[in-house]
Amino acid sequence: MIKNSSDKNLTIITKTLSFQTKGENDILDITDDIIETVNTTKLDNGIVTIFVPGSTGALTTIEYEPGLLIDLPNILEKIAPKSLLYEHEKRWHDGNGHSHVRAALIGPSLTVPFVDGTLTLGTWQQIVFLELDARSRRRKLIVQIIAE
Amino acid sequence: MIKNSSDKNLTIITKTLSFQTKGENDILDITDDIIETVNTTKLDNGIVTIFVPGSTGALTTIEYEPGLLIDLPNILEKIAPKSLLYEHEKRWHDGNGHSHVRAALIGPSLTVPFVDGTLTLGTWQQIVFLELDARSRRRKLIVQIIAE
Amino acid sequence: MIKNSSDKNLTIITKTLSFQTKGENDILDITDDIIETVNTTKLDNGIVTIFVPGSTGALTTIEYEPGLLIDLPNILEKIAPKSLLYEHEKRWHDGNGHSHVRAALIGPSLTVPFVDGTLTLGTWQQIVFLELDARSRRRKLIVQIIAE
Repeated sequence: MIKNSSDKNLTIITKTLSFQTKGENDILDITDDIIETVNTTKLDNGIVTIFVPGSTGALTTIEYEPGLLIDLPNILEKIAPKSLLYEHEKRWHDGNGHSHVRAALIGPSLTVPFVDGTLTLGTWQQIVFLELDARSRRRKLIVQIIAE
Repeated sequence: MIKNSSDKNLTIITKTLSFQTKGENDILDITDDIIETVNTTKLDNGIVTIFVPGSTGALTTIEYEPGLLIDLPNILEKIAPKSLLYEHEKRWHDGNGHSHVRAALIGPSLTVPFVDGTLTLGTWQQIVFLELDARSRRRKLIVQIIAE
Repeated sequence: MIKNSSDKNLTIITKTLSFQTKGENDILDITDDIIETVNTTKLDNGIVTIFVPGSTGALTTIEYEPGLLIDLPNILEKIAPKSLLYEHEKRWHDGNGHSHVRAALIGPSLTVPFVDGTLTLGTWQQIVFLELDARSRRRKLIVQIIAE
Protein backbone atom coordinates (compact mmCIF):
# COMPACT_ATOMS: atom_id res chain seq x y z
CA MET A 1 0.00 0.00 0.00
CA ILE A 2 1.34 3.39 -0.97
CA LYS A 3 -1.20 5.63 0.73
CA ASN A 4 -4.25 5.33 2.95
CA SER A 5 -5.28 8.67 4.34
CA SER A 6 -8.93 8.36 5.26
CA ASP A 7 -8.86 11.35 7.60
CA LYS A 8 -8.18 13.96 4.93
CA ASN A 9 -10.84 15.87 3.03
CA LEU A 10 -11.21 15.36 -0.70
CA THR A 11 -11.30 18.26 -3.11
CA ILE A 12 -12.47 18.73 -6.69
CA ILE A 13 -10.67 21.26 -8.84
CA THR A 14 -11.47 21.90 -12.50
CA LYS A 15 -9.17 23.75 -14.86
CA THR A 16 -8.95 24.12 -18.61
CA LEU A 17 -6.03 23.83 -20.98
CA SER A 18 -6.13 25.75 -24.28
CA PHE A 19 -3.89 25.56 -27.30
CA GLN A 20 -3.82 25.77 -31.07
CA THR A 21 -3.11 22.63 -33.10
CA LYS A 22 -1.17 22.69 -36.36
CA GLY A 23 -3.54 20.49 -38.32
CA GLU A 24 -4.40 16.86 -38.92
CA ASN A 25 -2.29 14.34 -37.01
CA ASP A 26 -0.68 16.98 -34.83
CA ILE A 27 0.17 15.13 -31.61
CA LEU A 28 0.77 17.40 -28.63
CA ASP A 29 2.64 16.36 -25.50
CA ILE A 30 0.54 17.89 -22.69
CA THR A 31 2.31 16.05 -19.84
CA ASP A 32 4.04 19.14 -18.43
CA ASP A 33 0.77 21.08 -18.47
CA ILE A 34 -0.96 18.32 -16.51
CA ILE A 35 1.95 18.06 -14.05
CA GLU A 36 1.84 21.83 -13.51
CA THR A 37 -1.93 21.72 -13.01
CA VAL A 38 -1.57 19.01 -10.37
CA ASN A 39 1.30 20.86 -8.68
CA THR A 40 -0.57 24.15 -8.39
CA THR A 41 -3.40 22.41 -6.51
CA LYS A 42 -0.93 21.32 -3.77
CA LEU A 43 -2.96 18.12 -3.50
CA ASP A 44 -1.19 14.84 -2.73
CA ASN A 45 -3.15 11.83 -3.95
CA GLY A 46 -5.95 11.36 -6.42
CA ILE A 47 -6.93 11.23 -10.06
CA VAL A 48 -6.70 13.73 -12.85
CA THR A 49 -9.35 13.28 -15.53
CA ILE A 50 -8.61 14.91 -18.87
CA PHE A 51 -11.49 15.29 -21.31
CA VAL A 52 -11.83 16.54 -24.91
CA PRO A 53 -15.04 18.51 -25.43
CA GLY A 54 -15.30 17.67 -29.12
CA SER A 55 -15.67 14.70 -31.42
CA THR A 56 -12.57 14.98 -33.64
CA GLY A 57 -9.83 14.90 -31.02
CA ALA A 58 -8.66 12.17 -28.64
CA LEU A 59 -6.43 11.51 -25.64
CA THR A 60 -4.03 8.68 -24.89
CA THR A 61 -0.46 8.09 -23.71
CA ILE A 62 2.54 7.25 -25.90
CA GLU A 63 6.33 7.47 -25.84
CA TYR A 64 6.70 10.93 -27.32
CA GLU A 65 9.49 10.47 -29.85
CA PRO A 66 9.53 11.48 -33.53
CA GLY A 67 9.17 7.96 -34.91
CA LEU A 68 5.90 7.16 -33.15
CA LEU A 69 4.47 10.55 -34.09
CA ILE A 70 4.60 9.22 -37.66
CA ASP A 71 3.72 5.59 -36.89
CA LEU A 72 0.50 6.26 -34.96
CA PRO A 73 -1.08 8.43 -37.70
CA ASN A 74 0.03 5.85 -40.28
CA ILE A 75 -1.85 3.10 -38.45
CA LEU A 76 -4.89 5.37 -37.97
CA GLU A 77 -4.87 5.93 -41.74
CA LYS A 78 -4.79 2.15 -42.17
CA ILE A 79 -7.73 1.69 -39.74
CA ALA A 80 -9.98 4.47 -41.09
CA PRO A 81 -8.53 5.72 -44.41
CA LYS A 82 -9.17 9.30 -45.38
CA SER A 83 -9.88 8.15 -48.96
CA LEU A 84 -12.95 6.03 -48.07
CA LEU A 85 -16.35 7.45 -48.91
CA TYR A 86 -17.90 8.23 -45.52
CA GLU A 87 -21.63 8.72 -45.08
CA HIS A 88 -20.77 11.64 -42.79
CA GLU A 89 -19.02 13.29 -45.74
CA LYS A 90 -22.01 12.80 -48.06
CA ARG A 91 -24.15 14.81 -45.64
CA TRP A 92 -21.80 17.40 -44.18
CA HIS A 93 -18.99 17.87 -46.73
CA ASP A 94 -16.42 18.89 -44.12
CA GLY A 95 -13.85 16.27 -45.10
CA ASN A 96 -13.54 14.72 -41.65
CA GLY A 97 -15.62 11.54 -41.58
CA HIS A 98 -12.44 9.56 -40.87
CA SER A 99 -11.59 12.02 -38.05
CA HIS A 100 -14.86 11.33 -36.22
CA VAL A 101 -14.47 7.56 -36.51
CA ARG A 102 -10.85 7.61 -35.32
CA ALA A 103 -11.75 9.84 -32.36
CA ALA A 104 -14.63 7.55 -31.32
CA LEU A 105 -12.30 4.54 -31.39
CA ILE A 106 -9.55 6.09 -29.23
CA GLY A 107 -11.87 7.97 -26.90
CA PRO A 108 -12.23 11.46 -25.41
CA SER A 109 -11.14 10.88 -21.82
CA LEU A 110 -8.08 9.77 -19.90
CA THR A 111 -7.71 9.21 -16.16
CA VAL A 112 -4.27 9.26 -14.54
CA PRO A 113 -3.69 8.66 -10.81
CA PHE A 114 -1.10 10.67 -8.91
CA VAL A 115 0.61 9.84 -5.62
CA ASP A 116 2.50 12.27 -3.36
CA GLY A 117 1.92 14.96 -5.95
CA THR A 118 3.52 12.96 -8.77
CA LEU A 119 1.70 11.51 -11.78
CA THR A 120 2.11 7.72 -11.96
CA LEU A 121 3.34 7.78 -15.57
CA GLY A 122 6.15 5.54 -16.76
CA THR A 123 9.51 7.05 -17.62
CA TRP A 124 8.89 6.89 -21.38
CA GLN A 125 5.18 7.61 -21.27
CA GLN A 126 3.65 10.98 -22.11
CA ILE A 127 0.06 12.23 -22.12
CA VAL A 128 -0.89 13.35 -25.63
CA PHE A 129 -3.72 15.11 -27.37
CA LEU A 130 -4.33 13.85 -30.90
CA GLU A 131 -5.67 16.38 -33.39
CA LEU A 132 -7.66 14.10 -35.68
CA ASP A 133 -9.65 16.78 -37.49
CA ALA A 134 -8.68 17.66 -41.06
CA ARG A 135 -7.51 21.15 -40.13
CA SER A 136 -5.87 23.29 -37.47
CA ARG A 137 -8.16 23.82 -34.49
CA ARG A 138 -8.30 25.89 -31.33
CA ARG A 139 -8.69 23.26 -28.58
CA LYS A 140 -9.76 23.46 -24.94
CA LEU A 141 -9.36 20.46 -22.68
CA ILE A 142 -11.05 19.94 -19.33
CA VAL A 143 -8.64 18.92 -16.56
CA GLN A 144 -10.44 17.84 -13.40
CA ILE A 145 -8.73 16.70 -10.24
CA ILE A 146 -10.34 14.71 -7.44
CA ALA A 147 -7.79 14.37 -4.68
CA GLU A 148 -6.80 14.83 -1.07
CA MET B 1 -9.40 27.87 -12.90
CA ILE B 2 -13.11 27.19 -13.17
CA LYS B 3 -13.79 25.87 -9.70
CA ASN B 4 -11.94 25.24 -6.49
CA SER B 5 -14.28 24.44 -3.64
CA SER B 6 -12.25 22.58 -1.08
CA ASP B 7 -14.68 23.26 1.72
CA LYS B 8 -17.56 21.24 0.30
CA ASN B 9 -18.19 17.59 1.00
CA LEU B 10 -17.93 15.07 -1.79
CA THR B 11 -20.67 12.58 -2.51
CA ILE B 12 -20.88 9.30 -4.41
CA ILE B 13 -24.15 8.40 -6.09
CA THR B 14 -24.70 5.29 -8.18
CA LYS B 15 -27.60 4.80 -10.55
CA THR B 16 -28.38 2.41 -13.38
CA LEU B 17 -29.68 3.00 -16.86
CA SER B 18 -31.63 0.22 -18.60
CA PHE B 19 -32.77 -0.14 -22.18
CA GLN B 20 -33.32 -2.60 -24.98
CA THR B 21 -31.05 -2.50 -28.04
CA LYS B 22 -32.31 -3.29 -31.53
CA GLY B 23 -29.45 -5.57 -32.52
CA GLU B 24 -25.90 -5.49 -33.82
CA ASN B 25 -24.47 -2.01 -34.43
CA ASP B 26 -27.34 -0.24 -32.72
CA ILE B 27 -25.80 2.99 -31.43
CA LEU B 28 -27.81 4.69 -28.67
CA ASP B 29 -27.46 8.33 -27.71
CA ILE B 30 -27.60 8.24 -23.90
CA THR B 31 -26.52 11.87 -23.38
CA ASP B 32 -29.91 13.09 -22.14
CA ASP B 33 -30.13 10.20 -19.68
CA ILE B 34 -26.72 11.09 -18.26
CA ILE B 35 -27.60 14.79 -18.08
CA GLU B 36 -30.82 13.96 -16.24
CA THR B 37 -28.95 11.67 -13.85
CA VAL B 38 -26.48 14.43 -13.04
CA ASN B 39 -29.27 17.01 -12.66
CA THR B 40 -31.30 14.91 -10.23
CA THR B 41 -28.30 14.66 -7.89
CA LYS B 42 -28.19 18.49 -7.58
CA LEU B 43 -24.41 18.19 -7.42
CA ASP B 44 -22.26 20.89 -9.00
CA ASN B 45 -18.81 19.64 -9.95
CA GLY B 46 -17.34 16.20 -10.46
CA ILE B 47 -17.12 13.18 -12.69
CA VAL B 48 -19.69 10.80 -14.01
CA THR B 49 -18.32 7.33 -14.75
CA ILE B 50 -20.41 5.19 -17.09
CA PHE B 51 -19.67 1.47 -17.21
CA VAL B 52 -20.94 -1.46 -19.30
CA PRO B 53 -21.26 -4.62 -17.21
CA GLY B 54 -20.73 -6.96 -20.15
CA SER B 55 -18.14 -7.84 -22.77
CA THR B 56 -20.01 -7.20 -26.04
CA GLY B 57 -20.97 -3.54 -25.59
CA ALA B 58 -18.87 -0.38 -25.43
CA LEU B 59 -19.03 3.33 -24.62
CA THR B 60 -17.56 6.33 -26.39
CA THR B 61 -18.57 9.76 -27.68
CA ILE B 62 -19.42 10.70 -31.26
CA GLU B 63 -21.33 13.34 -33.21
CA TYR B 64 -24.70 11.61 -33.28
CA GLU B 65 -25.80 12.06 -36.89
CA PRO B 66 -27.04 9.37 -39.31
CA GLY B 67 -23.88 9.27 -41.44
CA LEU B 68 -21.52 8.36 -38.60
CA LEU B 69 -23.95 5.73 -37.30
CA ILE B 70 -23.15 3.91 -40.55
CA ASP B 71 -19.48 4.86 -40.80
CA LEU B 72 -18.42 3.67 -37.34
CA PRO B 73 -19.87 0.13 -37.76
CA ASN B 74 -18.32 0.00 -41.25
CA ILE B 75 -14.87 0.68 -39.84
CA LEU B 76 -15.44 -1.80 -36.99
CA GLU B 77 -16.29 -4.40 -39.64
CA LYS B 78 -13.02 -3.51 -41.37
CA ILE B 79 -11.05 -3.84 -38.10
CA ALA B 80 -12.59 -7.11 -36.90
CA PRO B 81 -14.65 -8.60 -39.72
CA LYS B 82 -17.62 -10.77 -38.82
CA SER B 83 -16.62 -13.25 -41.53
CA LEU B 84 -13.26 -14.20 -39.96
CA LEU B 85 -13.02 -17.54 -38.21
CA TYR B 86 -12.71 -16.64 -34.53
CA GLU B 87 -11.38 -19.12 -31.97
CA HIS B 88 -14.14 -17.89 -29.67
CA GLU B 89 -16.68 -19.08 -32.25
CA LYS B 90 -15.09 -22.54 -32.52
CA ARG B 91 -15.66 -23.03 -28.81
CA TRP B 92 -18.89 -21.20 -28.05
CA HIS B 93 -20.84 -21.03 -31.34
CA ASP B 94 -22.68 -17.84 -30.42
CA GLY B 95 -21.62 -15.91 -33.53
CA ASN B 96 -20.08 -13.00 -31.65
CA GLY B 97 -16.31 -13.48 -31.62
CA HIS B 98 -15.95 -10.22 -33.52
CA SER B 99 -18.25 -8.50 -30.99
CA HIS B 100 -15.99 -9.40 -28.08
CA VAL B 101 -12.86 -8.20 -29.85
CA ARG B 102 -14.45 -4.90 -30.93
CA ALA B 103 -15.74 -4.26 -27.39
CA ALA B 104 -12.31 -4.93 -25.86
CA LEU B 105 -10.72 -2.45 -28.29
CA ILE B 106 -13.14 0.42 -27.59
CA GLY B 107 -13.52 -0.27 -23.89
CA PRO B 108 -16.31 -0.57 -21.30
CA SER B 109 -15.97 2.70 -19.40
CA LEU B 110 -16.21 6.41 -20.03
CA THR B 111 -15.54 9.26 -17.60
CA VAL B 112 -17.01 12.71 -18.25
CA PRO B 113 -16.39 15.72 -15.97
CA PHE B 114 -19.19 18.17 -15.21
CA VAL B 115 -18.94 21.77 -13.99
CA ASP B 116 -21.74 23.84 -12.43
CA GLY B 117 -24.10 20.94 -13.09
CA THR B 118 -23.31 20.83 -16.82
CA LEU B 119 -21.48 18.03 -18.62
CA THR B 120 -18.33 19.31 -20.35
CA LEU B 121 -19.30 17.80 -23.72
CA GLY B 122 -18.70 19.65 -26.97
CA THR B 123 -21.66 21.02 -28.90
CA TRP B 124 -21.57 18.20 -31.46
CA GLN B 125 -20.52 15.44 -29.07
CA GLN B 126 -22.86 12.83 -27.67
CA ILE B 127 -22.32 9.94 -25.26
CA VAL B 128 -23.18 6.67 -26.98
CA PHE B 129 -23.62 3.02 -26.10
CA LEU B 130 -22.53 0.68 -28.89
CA GLU B 131 -24.39 -2.62 -29.12
CA LEU B 132 -21.66 -4.83 -30.58
CA ASP B 133 -23.30 -8.19 -29.88
CA ALA B 134 -24.83 -10.09 -32.79
CA ARG B 135 -28.37 -9.71 -31.44
CA SER B 136 -30.77 -7.45 -29.58
CA ARG B 137 -29.93 -7.29 -25.89
CA ARG B 138 -31.40 -5.95 -22.68
CA ARG B 139 -28.65 -3.65 -21.35
CA LYS B 140 -28.02 -2.10 -17.96
CA LEU B 141 -25.33 0.56 -17.55
CA ILE B 142 -23.79 1.71 -14.28
CA VAL B 143 -23.74 5.50 -13.87
CA GLN B 144 -21.67 6.60 -10.91
CA ILE B 145 -21.15 10.19 -9.87
CA ILE B 146 -18.38 11.49 -7.60
CA ALA B 147 -18.99 15.16 -7.04
CA GLU B 148 -19.52 18.09 -4.70
CA MET C 1 -30.96 4.72 -7.49
CA ILE C 2 -28.72 2.17 -5.87
CA LYS C 3 -26.89 4.35 -3.39
CA ASN C 4 -26.88 7.93 -2.19
CA SER C 5 -24.82 8.35 0.92
CA SER C 6 -23.84 11.97 1.09
CA ASP C 7 -23.08 11.90 4.78
CA LYS C 8 -20.11 9.54 4.55
CA ASN C 9 -16.53 10.63 4.11
CA LEU C 10 -14.69 9.74 0.94
CA THR C 11 -11.31 8.09 0.99
CA ILE C 12 -8.49 7.68 -1.51
CA ILE C 13 -6.36 4.56 -1.32
CA THR C 14 -3.54 3.75 -3.73
CA LYS C 15 -2.01 0.30 -4.11
CA THR C 16 0.22 -1.35 -6.67
CA LEU C 17 -0.04 -4.72 -8.37
CA SER C 18 3.16 -6.37 -9.62
CA PHE C 19 3.66 -9.41 -11.83
CA GLN C 20 5.84 -10.89 -14.54
CA THR C 21 4.43 -11.33 -18.04
CA LYS C 22 5.38 -14.24 -20.27
CA GLY C 23 5.98 -12.19 -23.41
CA GLU C 24 4.16 -10.59 -26.29
CA ASN C 25 0.38 -11.02 -26.28
CA ASP C 26 0.30 -12.44 -22.79
CA ILE C 27 -3.15 -11.48 -21.47
CA LEU C 28 -3.47 -11.61 -17.68
CA ASP C 29 -6.77 -11.81 -15.82
CA ILE C 30 -6.26 -9.39 -12.91
CA THR C 31 -9.92 -9.38 -11.80
CA ASP C 32 -9.33 -11.29 -8.57
CA ASP C 33 -6.45 -8.99 -7.64
CA ILE C 34 -8.66 -5.94 -8.10
CA ILE C 35 -11.53 -7.54 -6.14
CA GLU C 36 -9.13 -8.36 -3.31
CA THR C 37 -7.75 -4.81 -3.35
CA VAL C 38 -11.25 -3.37 -3.09
CA ASN C 39 -12.20 -5.83 -0.35
CA THR C 40 -9.19 -5.04 1.83
CA THR C 41 -10.14 -1.34 1.86
CA LYS C 42 -13.54 -2.20 3.45
CA LEU C 43 -15.00 0.64 1.37
CA ASP C 44 -18.53 0.30 -0.01
CA ASN C 45 -19.09 2.47 -3.07
CA GLY C 46 -16.77 4.17 -5.49
CA ILE C 47 -14.42 3.77 -8.40
CA VAL C 48 -11.24 1.82 -8.85
CA THR C 49 -8.87 3.32 -11.42
CA ILE C 50 -6.25 0.96 -12.81
CA PHE C 51 -3.32 2.51 -14.67
CA VAL C 52 -0.34 1.13 -16.61
CA PRO C 53 2.81 3.21 -16.00
CA GLY C 54 4.37 2.34 -19.36
CA SER C 55 3.72 2.71 -23.07
CA THR C 56 3.70 -0.91 -24.28
CA GLY C 57 0.95 -2.37 -22.10
CA ALA C 58 -2.79 -1.73 -21.97
CA LEU C 59 -5.92 -2.41 -19.92
CA THR C 60 -9.42 -3.43 -20.97
CA THR C 61 -12.11 -5.98 -20.14
CA ILE C 62 -12.88 -9.17 -22.05
CA GLU C 63 -14.51 -12.56 -21.52
CA TYR C 64 -11.45 -14.45 -20.36
CA GLU C 65 -11.68 -17.69 -22.32
CA PRO C 66 -8.96 -19.34 -24.44
CA GLY C 67 -10.51 -18.49 -27.80
CA LEU C 68 -10.53 -14.73 -27.30
CA LEU C 69 -6.97 -14.81 -25.93
CA ILE C 70 -6.01 -15.83 -29.48
CA ASP C 71 -8.57 -13.69 -31.34
CA LEU C 72 -7.69 -10.36 -29.73
CA PRO C 73 -3.94 -10.59 -30.56
CA ASN C 74 -4.84 -11.75 -34.07
CA ILE C 75 -6.90 -8.60 -34.65
CA LEU C 76 -4.18 -6.42 -33.09
CA GLU C 77 -1.74 -7.97 -35.56
CA LYS C 78 -4.18 -7.08 -38.33
CA ILE C 79 -4.48 -3.46 -37.07
CA ALA C 80 -0.78 -2.79 -36.49
CA PRO C 81 1.24 -5.63 -38.04
CA LYS C 82 4.60 -6.49 -36.52
CA SER C 83 6.08 -6.81 -40.01
CA LEU C 84 5.52 -3.16 -41.01
CA LEU C 85 8.53 -0.86 -41.04
CA TYR C 86 7.92 1.48 -38.10
CA GLU C 87 9.73 4.80 -37.80
CA HIS C 88 10.13 4.01 -34.11
CA GLU C 89 12.11 0.92 -35.10
CA LYS C 90 14.41 2.84 -37.44
CA ARG C 91 15.45 5.01 -34.50
CA TRP C 92 15.38 2.72 -31.51
CA HIS C 93 15.84 -0.84 -32.84
CA ASP C 94 13.94 -2.45 -29.99
CA GLY C 95 11.47 -4.32 -32.19
CA ASN C 96 8.36 -2.87 -30.58
CA GLY C 97 7.04 -0.07 -32.78
CA HIS C 98 3.82 -2.03 -33.24
CA SER C 99 3.58 -2.50 -29.44
CA HIS C 100 3.61 1.25 -28.81
CA VAL C 101 0.95 1.92 -31.43
CA ARG C 102 -1.33 -0.87 -30.18
CA ALA C 103 -0.98 0.34 -26.57
CA ALA C 104 -1.83 3.93 -27.53
CA LEU C 105 -4.97 2.74 -29.33
CA ILE C 106 -6.33 0.64 -26.44
CA GLY C 107 -5.21 2.97 -23.69
CA PRO C 108 -3.43 2.81 -20.33
CA SER C 109 -6.29 3.31 -17.90
CA LEU C 110 -9.52 1.63 -16.88
CA THR C 111 -12.13 2.84 -14.39
CA VAL C 112 -14.56 0.38 -12.82
CA PRO C 113 -17.29 1.40 -10.34
CA PHE C 114 -18.11 -0.79 -7.35
CA VAL C 115 -21.28 -0.88 -5.26
CA ASP C 116 -21.69 -2.43 -1.81
CA GLY C 117 -18.11 -3.65 -2.07
CA THR C 118 -18.72 -5.50 -5.34
CA LEU C 119 -17.24 -4.57 -8.74
CA THR C 120 -19.98 -3.87 -11.28
CA LEU C 121 -18.52 -6.29 -13.84
CA GLY C 122 -20.73 -8.54 -15.95
CA THR C 123 -20.76 -12.27 -15.31
CA TRP C 124 -18.55 -13.04 -18.31
CA GLN C 125 -16.37 -9.94 -18.09
CA GLN C 126 -12.86 -9.89 -16.68
CA ILE C 127 -10.32 -7.08 -16.20
CA VAL C 128 -7.19 -7.84 -18.21
CA PHE C 129 -3.69 -6.50 -18.64
CA LEU C 130 -2.37 -6.87 -22.19
CA GLU C 131 1.37 -7.33 -22.55
CA LEU C 132 1.94 -5.73 -25.94
CA ASP C 133 5.72 -5.41 -25.74
CA ALA C 134 7.86 -7.82 -27.78
CA ARG C 135 9.25 -9.53 -24.68
CA SER C 136 8.54 -10.66 -21.15
CA ARG C 137 8.34 -7.72 -18.77
CA ARG C 138 8.13 -7.06 -15.06
CA ARG C 139 4.96 -4.94 -14.72
CA LYS C 140 3.62 -2.75 -11.95
CA LEU C 141 0.07 -1.40 -12.15
CA ILE C 142 -1.36 1.47 -10.10
CA VAL C 143 -4.69 0.63 -8.45
CA GLN C 144 -6.33 3.70 -6.95
CA ILE C 145 -9.66 3.68 -5.16
CA ILE C 146 -11.87 6.72 -4.48
CA ALA C 147 -14.78 5.56 -2.38
CA GLU C 148 -16.89 5.86 0.73
